[in-house]
Amino acid sequence: MSRLDSFIRRMSAQRDCLDRAAELIADVPGPVLELGLGNGRTYDHLRELLPGREIYVFDRRVAAHPDCIPDDRHMILGDIRETLPAANRRVPEPAALVHTDIGTGNEAANLEQARWLGPTLKPLLAPGAVVVSDQPMPVEGWEELPLPAGVPERRYFMYRNR
Amino acid sequence: MSRLDSFIRRMSAQRDCLDRAAELIADVPGPVLELGLGNGRTYDHLRELLPGREIYVFDRRVAAHPDCIPDDRHMILGDIRETLPAANRRVPEPAALVHTDIGTGNEAANLEQARWLGPTLKPLLAPGAVVVSDQPMPVEGWEELPLPAGVPERRYFMYRNR
Repeated sequence: MSRLDSFIRRMSAQRDCLDRAAELIADVPGPVLELGLGNGRTYDHLRELLPGREIYVFDRRVAAHPDCIPDDRHMILGDIRETLPAANRRVPEPAALVHTDIGTGNEAANLEQARWLGPTLKPLLAPGAVVVSDQPMPVEGWEELPLPAGVPERRYFMYRNR
Repeated sequence: MSRLDSFIRRMSAQRDCLDRAAELIADVPGPVLELGLGNGRTYDHLRELLPGREIYVFDRRVAAHPDCIPDDRHMILGDIRETLPAANRRVPEPAALVHTDIGTGNEAANLEQARWLGPTLKPLLAPGAVVVSDQPMPVEGWEELPLPAGVPERRYFMYRNR
């Protein structure tokens, strides 16, 4: 499979998982946490999908399309190893949805980050909150959810916080 | 439609048009010209799709994944306004396929570029060659082709050189 095919599948999987997650959190109050702003495409999708929700975005820097940049209150700049453990200072309520797409080409680094990230996210989540992740994130108290039809196993991951 | 949806559609349209073009040029000898290397995903797709063809890539700089960089003979560096009119020095035969995905966010600049690009490409093409473009490129002697099923009108463009 070419890198173009693989990229289209990954982007489609991300979109389909977020669309499913939006349905799953219909009765769960709380904001959305987006880890990694990047070019802002996924942030744009989230705000279209969940127009009533506050979306807090974490990233080291802002390099997004000018139309896809959150206001200062919702853009939390810095290394997530520092900003995420302190997130309750900026995010006033437990989150209903977290999307994390911060994997790199280095699989060992991704696994290590996911191991740290899950337990760090856990206390920020509302009961019933959904986590959508490009990396596996086995966390005590999170149930792994089936993926939407058409999304191949292990291309994306979805969990529900009990 | 969100920017994520739009991006997925554009990438899928590009892939579907290239797959169709590969069938259309089955009996047309000649190399492939790829205008814009970018991250190299489309170059990777082209070399998988057309394993027997030489692929010449034009870009200002190389910023692709290390696995997706052509060798020096096939990587033509510089501004296409200079390298393309002189391409016959580097590309030994008329091309069977050109893919151009060099549009920017600026629609006026894109239109101006497409107006210049079409007539510049024309003498580099074999009879029956196919042009796949992210911009409309009406050129005397090029027939506009129908798009593959599922590709919305004007998301991508395909032409056949007579």
